[in-house]
Amino acid sequence: MHYDHQVQVRYGETDQMGVVHHANYLLYFEEARTAFLAHHGQPYGQLEKDGLALPVRKLDLRFRAPAHYEDKLCVRVSVERITAASVRFVYEIKRPINDVLIATGCTELACIDLTSTPRRPHVLPEAMRELFG
Amino acid sequence: MHYDHQVQVRYGETDQMGVVHHANYLLYFEEARTAFLAHHGQPYGQLEKDGLALPVRKLDLRFRAPAHYEDKLCVRVSVERITAASVRFVYEIKRPINDVLIATGCTELACIDLTSTPRRPHVLPEAMRELFG
Amino acid sequence: MHYDHQVQVRYGETDQMGVVHHANYLLYFEEARTAFLAHHGQPYGQLEKDGLALPVRKLDLRFRAPAHYEDKLCVRVSVERITAASVRFVYEIKRPINDVLIATGCTELACIDLTSTPRRPHVLPEAMRELFG
Amino acid sequence: MHYDHQVQVRYGETDQMGVVHHANYLLYFEEARTAFLAHHGQPYGQLEKDGLALPVRKLDLRFRAPAHYEDKLCVRVSVERITAASVRFVYEIKRPINDVLIATGCTELACIDLTSTPRRPHVLPEAMRELFG
Repeated sequence: MHYDHQVQVRYGETDQMGVVHHANYLLYFEEARTAFLAHHGQPYGQLEKDGLALPVRKLDLRFRAPAHYEDKLCVRVSVERITAASVRFVYEIKRPINDVLIATGCTELACIDLTSTPRRPHVLPEAMRELFG
Repeated sequence: MHYDHQVQVRYGETDQMGVVHHANYLLYFEEARTAFLAHHGQPYGQLEKDGLALPVRKLDLRFRAPAHYEDKLCVRVSVERITAASVRFVYEIKRPINDVLIATGCTELACIDLTSTPRRPHVLPEAMRELFG
Repeated sequence: MHYDHQVQVRYGETDQMGVVHHANYLLYFEEARTAFLAHHGQPYGQLEKDGLALPVRKLDLRFRAPAHYEDKLCVRVSVERITAASVRFVYEIKRPINDVLIATGCTELACIDLTSTPRRPHVLPEAMRELFG
Repeated sequence: MHYDHQVQVRYGETDQMGVVHHANYLLYFEEARTAFLAHHGQPYGQLEKDGLALPVRKLDLRFRAPAHYEDKLCVRVSVERITAASVRFVYEIKRPINDVLIATGCTELACIDLTSTPRRPHVLPEAMRELFG
């Protein structure tokens, strides 16, 4: 099960090398991941209203080809692995117009209880575990 | 009373025009403003711990000359006007090495009570009003 | 003549106040402005390929109500004034779901010649002047 | 050989979880890496003026503890490996005041020739290979 999300490169996301600055790919990943969750009836905002959060605890990224201003990119996201209290998403970004692979990567998120101090791990919501399990 | 704060342009703050992207000047203003407050014994973080916040409600910016990657810039900040529940900071950004004026601007901040829903205006802390009044 | 552009608030665009950080509105303005230009057959990327650019030389912003993570916002953009070598866009951001006005503002852009050193003012492309004149 | 670079967390770098948004660590890495290069007489800006660039082609990041607004962080950077046309930096971010490890990571940069189209790999400058070799 994967989800395809489209983003278009903003001018402010480029840097003086004339390409998308590498940190911004994490914003594309994030947007795709939350669109994926919302698409399956699990909007991330609701999770935080319920007192949980999913901070990123690990990530990697590999850049294959540069992306440019105004490029329409497709971010394909899927869940690679889910445990009781963490979930690992993998991503592939392509420029569909010429089918070029731009970047690949993954982010591993831990579920935490926002109401505890310090914030403690917490099991993922049942619905999320069923969805991706 | 003014305060001079130095920032150095990060690579990720440039855009493909080869200059600092205009939105980033607001981050320089913010960093200078909070360094100014901290310098006078009013760290902004403490204010939020005390249940208050100072969101920006109005701002303007004028760009005089472009700034570039690695530029060391001086942000001069001062308080132009303070009322019971708002404070207006003005800024001037220069590149000291050649004394070029880069940008000028202002931000007006309202004091709000973070514990109210919706967040209501709140008088500024006494110490801040005395400092800038 | 105006153009309505939709953006959805990204998680990374919020700050610890729990609302959209004020600098990010300039990214929404920019995205709306360039979508507006592209919609009228004037993609901004092409302008730079032709050796011209439109840096922002002046802007103001007024925040009316906070925007939150996942909010779908409508950015209405129009041209307020165009001269031989500059153009002034005005913006109004609303949250359509409850018709709340979030922010208003303007950006004034100067047309420059990217191939000159230092970069000199240049007349706006004919097509743009006809479109907005 | 390592280099310690201090950064202080900006307000705009936090998100609504009340901590530094994960993408911003890449900006801290970048600032530390270029300060490291400049410290050794290899300012990155000069490299680009000489027609070369060092885009990030691979990175990973692991978050150990959250960082907060106003935190003063120490980014320790060193070169792990250098080849003819690439260099791999590793990073460790700590909060010195309580000696907490915040994040670790690495970025691998490829040297490219900015004047070629498409941009081709290029050997790293001699001085950089000597410095880190």
